[in-house]
Amino acid sequence: MRNWSTQKEALALRRYAGQRYACGKSVALDDLPQFLEAVLRPGDRVCLEGDNQKQADILAKALANLDPGKIHDLHMVQSGVVLPEHLDVFEKGVAKRLDFSYSGPQSTRIARMLSGGKIELGAVHTYLELFARYFIDLTPQVALIAAVSADRDGNLYTGPNTEDTPTVVEATSFKSGMVVAQVAEIVDKVPRVDIPGDLVHFVVDAKKPFYVEPLFTRDPGAITETQILTAMLAIKGLYAPYGVRRLNHGIGFNTAAIELLLPTYGEKLGLKGKICTHFALNPHPTLIPAIEAGWVEQIHSFGSEVGMDDYLSARSDIFFTGPDGSLRSNRAYCQVAGLYACDMFIGSTLQIDLQGHSSTVTTNRIAGFGGAPNMGSDSRGRRHPSEPWLKAGADADPNAAAGLRRGRKLVVQIGETFGEKNVPLFVEQLDALELADKLDLDLAPVMIYGDDVSHIITEDGIANLLLCRDNDEREQAIRGVAGYTDVGRARDRKMVERLRARGVIRRPEDLGIDPLDADRRMLAARSIKDLMLASGGLYQPPSQFRNW
Amino acid sequence: MRNWSTQKEALALRRYAGQRYACGKSVALDDLPQFLEAVLRPGDRVCLEGDNQKQADILAKALANLDPGKIHDLHMVQSGVVLPEHLDVFEKGVAKRLDFSYSGPQSTRIARMLSGGKIELGAVHTYLELFARYFIDLTPQVALIAAVSADRDGNLYTGPNTEDTPTVVEATSFKSGMVVAQVAEIVDKVPRVDIPGDLVHFVVDAKKPFYVEPLFTRDPGAITETQILTAMLAIKGLYAPYGVRRLNHGIGFNTAAIELLLPTYGEKLGLKGKICTHFALNPHPTLIPAIEAGWVEQIHSFGSEVGMDDYLSARSDIFFTGPDGSLRSNRAYCQVAGLYACDMFIGSTLQIDLQGHSSTVTTNRIAGFGGAPNMGSDSRGRRHPSEPWLKAGADADPNAAAGLRRGRKLVVQIGETFGEKNVPLFVEQLDALELADKLDLDLAPVMIYGDDVSHIITEDGIANLLLCRDNDEREQAIRGVAGYTDVGRARDRKMVERLRARGVIRRPEDLGIDPLDADRRMLAARSIKDLMLASGGLYQPPSQFRNW
Repeated sequence: MRNWSTQKEALALRRYAGQRYACGKSVALDDLPQFLEAVLRPGDRVCLEGDNQKQADILAKALANLDPGKIHDLHMVQSGVVLPEHLDVFEKGVAKRLDFSYSGPQSTRIARMLSGGKIELGAVHTYLELFARYFIDLTPQVALIAAVSADRDGNLYTGPNTEDTPTVVEATSFKSGMVVAQVAEIVDKVPRVDIPGDLVHFVVDAKKPFYVEPLFTRDPGAITETQILTAMLAIKGLYAPYGVRRLNHGIGFNTAAIELLLPTYGEKLGLKGKICTHFALNPHPTLIPAIEAGWVEQIHSFGSEVGMDDYLSARSDIFFTGPDGSLRSNRAYCQVAGLYACDMFIGSTLQIDLQGHSSTVTTNRIAGFGGAPNMGSDSRGRRHPSEPWLKAGADADPNAAAGLRRGRKLVVQIGETFGEKNVPLFVEQLDALELADKLDLDLAPVMIYGDDVSHIITEDGIANLLLCRDNDEREQAIRGVAGYTDVGRARDRKMVERLRARGVIRRPEDLGIDPLDADRRMLAARSIKDLMLASGGLYQPPSQFRNW
Repeated sequence: MRNWSTQKEALALRRYAGQRYACGKSVALDDLPQFLEAVLRPGDRVCLEGDNQKQADILAKALANLDPGKIHDLHMVQSGVVLPEHLDVFEKGVAKRLDFSYSGPQSTRIARMLSGGKIELGAVHTYLELFARYFIDLTPQVALIAAVSADRDGNLYTGPNTEDTPTVVEATSFKSGMVVAQVAEIVDKVPRVDIPGDLVHFVVDAKKPFYVEPLFTRDPGAITETQILTAMLAIKGLYAPYGVRRLNHGIGFNTAAIELLLPTYGEKLGLKGKICTHFALNPHPTLIPAIEAGWVEQIHSFGSEVGMDDYLSARSDIFFTGPDGSLRSNRAYCQVAGLYACDMFIGSTLQIDLQGHSSTVTTNRIAGFGGAPNMGSDSRGRRHPSEPWLKAGADADPNAAAGLRRGRKLVVQIGETFGEKNVPLFVEQLDALELADKLDLDLAPVMIYGDDVSHIITEDGIANLLLCRDNDEREQAIRGVAGYTDVGRARDRKMVERLRARGVIRRPEDLGIDPLDADRRMLAARSIKDLMLASGGLYQPPSQFRNW
């Protein structure tokens, strides 16, 4: 007779072992190392909550300090590899295998450790893809998560930065795994129950808030006039003709510029109510002026943003908020919303090649994918029509039989032909290919594949790749907006002119835009302080962004 | 000064109005009509929980009986249109506009009402797509949901059929909408908290369980030898060579046959542990013999299935179960799992055309999409490799540059060349096109588009569409497995032979399969009673399936 309850029994043993160091569900900070050694087993699949924003930092630190003689060969399955401790666990031999999604600040070290054999790589995922695998073949046996507060029964309040927590807990706890939460305080009653206590086995009182990174704050003061020009092109040449109302923005300065031009340039063009009404978006401070001017109807968010909490509470008609008044974010649902309910994804990248493939990977950095490839791909399972989606589909396939005509998602890459430190955006070959070769990866870490990209925008103009009928046209359309980069200078001038005549490439002047009008005075806010003022003082910028 | 809290204020007014008919959060069944009239407003966007399985039937009935003079023009946003009452609300003028996903039993009536102008159609979605829009532009203002039990604080136990509820509640309640739940009983303490009481405003004691449909039960007694042959082809010609371990099955008899052949035919082929280890799947009773024989490691489910509850509780190593021991299902997460973490979707359909487009729509039925187009589409945002996915990608594009090679999802259509009542599976043109024309739809209701389909399996053989290099090859590959249907008889014999020589078409004999071996004795269970016995009596078949 096979035992079909081995997982429930293993959980009972873990709970029993952990109970030695706990009072009820509460584990004291001092007992954390012994507690973790008691509940963990070598080889466990562990999710140490590292989102791109909030971090279970106290649990990370404790995990990294465990004795690898006792706890080793852990398989880490977590969306963000962000804190140094996330890699220390591998350096010290506590963990061995890694499946992840995003590694912004650790991208150089992770690449070094991968090539040095310190980490056995499972795969680099998008967020939604890793969440998907939590339910199929990468289910955590132990989840170490972060919340704001807990009550004595283990009910958790995750607060505005709910992010990955509900998904991680659902996969772990309902598959007989153990859930341990760090919280800033234990209270009699939590402001709202984000995670029912039933699903939480132990709570560690960290005595201080979890670490959270202001990842989505862009200082308007750093937006260049070239970025303003690309934003004008996007609004007049793309948002307006397609009538894009449901969308997601990336986190770069180009999209921040778009947000700040809505109440000025967008207003002048008469686009209010016609574009940018519904977002899947983190609470970008640069969207405050557009919200205040009445442009935006609704925003669902992946996470929160440092300093935005009071503003979000005061704008409950726009944002999702709980009965307690604070923001409710949820990365899994917001990624789904970005994939299936948005007509456009627009973001920046580091490199674009001649086929339109793009990547943020360079030869010595693996930044991971985050959510971009999920939202920046044509969602072929989509079945509901909308104007922008049908128009993009008609661009791509004007001869499709009526009824069998499909829509297309607008997937837009926006940037300057020369980026930071004058590095060209356009390249003959992505560095990602060299990296894949070096690390012997099955797939090069391409952020967005060329055949999913519908448009590329630079200060040189807009290339509509949907209108290209073959690979040659596609390549020349890309070269045609690549300016004075090597890729741009190698263009076939005649073919580029023909593409322009057909509207495949549209220059600023073709759209009636004078580049000299791209002036910082057009920004609805020109500094972080302006954003704070626009919010009526509700936005409280984090200290590193305050210079007044 | 704009008021930014109109939604919270409207909710407060609704709660106040509802409170007249409630004691605490409890509404008595007799007061339900007055209560609903008090909390609803004409034009409200309402989600009346109708999944494909469980139904908020008491709330549906009450809604359909409201006075359209008071409550009218509701916009219904719900995944399933299943009960007669779901359409009665339109017939009576209480509701006007509809956005939905699935309408199995009401598919004929819905088509009639659409063409009669009784319903204003938003769109037909997949589940995940409608859930996505709940967070962007179709957020319910009122959700009428179903649960097993509630406590006095409104904490809900949804039980094994959790399904859509967490998603509906999250979207509604966190956007200041009102949530009303019908429950079978109010208890002192719920077995587990599936929905925190914070998010639930009123509870109706329906005094009986919600209605639930055994939608995923297939009687092995009804499986034909032709279906067994297609199942043998699938296992030996597809599952084995690709090594498919993570997958989703449709609900037809062909896939039921596959499930029942694993412990017999699959065992003989030495495939245990090499295929079918991880599923995104409802608890199909026909999978019991394979589970008992140790084939399956883990299953995550969209919903539950009538009669399976005790079996699921007793198999917690395989299924997701709560701390109370009962199944935890979740349609949103399971659809995400099917989309991004599975390498194969295989299902049946009613019609396939010459391009491989398929549809379950006929000229007078709109069945909706459910989850098939979501899971049955190539997930282009996927970035993690697996053997089957890479092999399918190499089939489709053998010359792709290393590193830039992408994988492909296996999307398989399986069926007999002549289906029920001898209706041919293959057609020159889908009925869906005629319907789209008749109802003036932007998109014909195509279930799965041909360019997403990787293989078609009939008793005639397997057509590997990934290996086809142009539309002609594709058409002949399809004709080549279309048997004696008109489509099959119009094949170009020479081209079909060439395709067979290249392995694009593989006949049973090419795979060493003798059609005469396709015998019902190969099924691991040949009746519902066999399934019950295989489960050790844990599976309790619903009465309509008991004939002993």
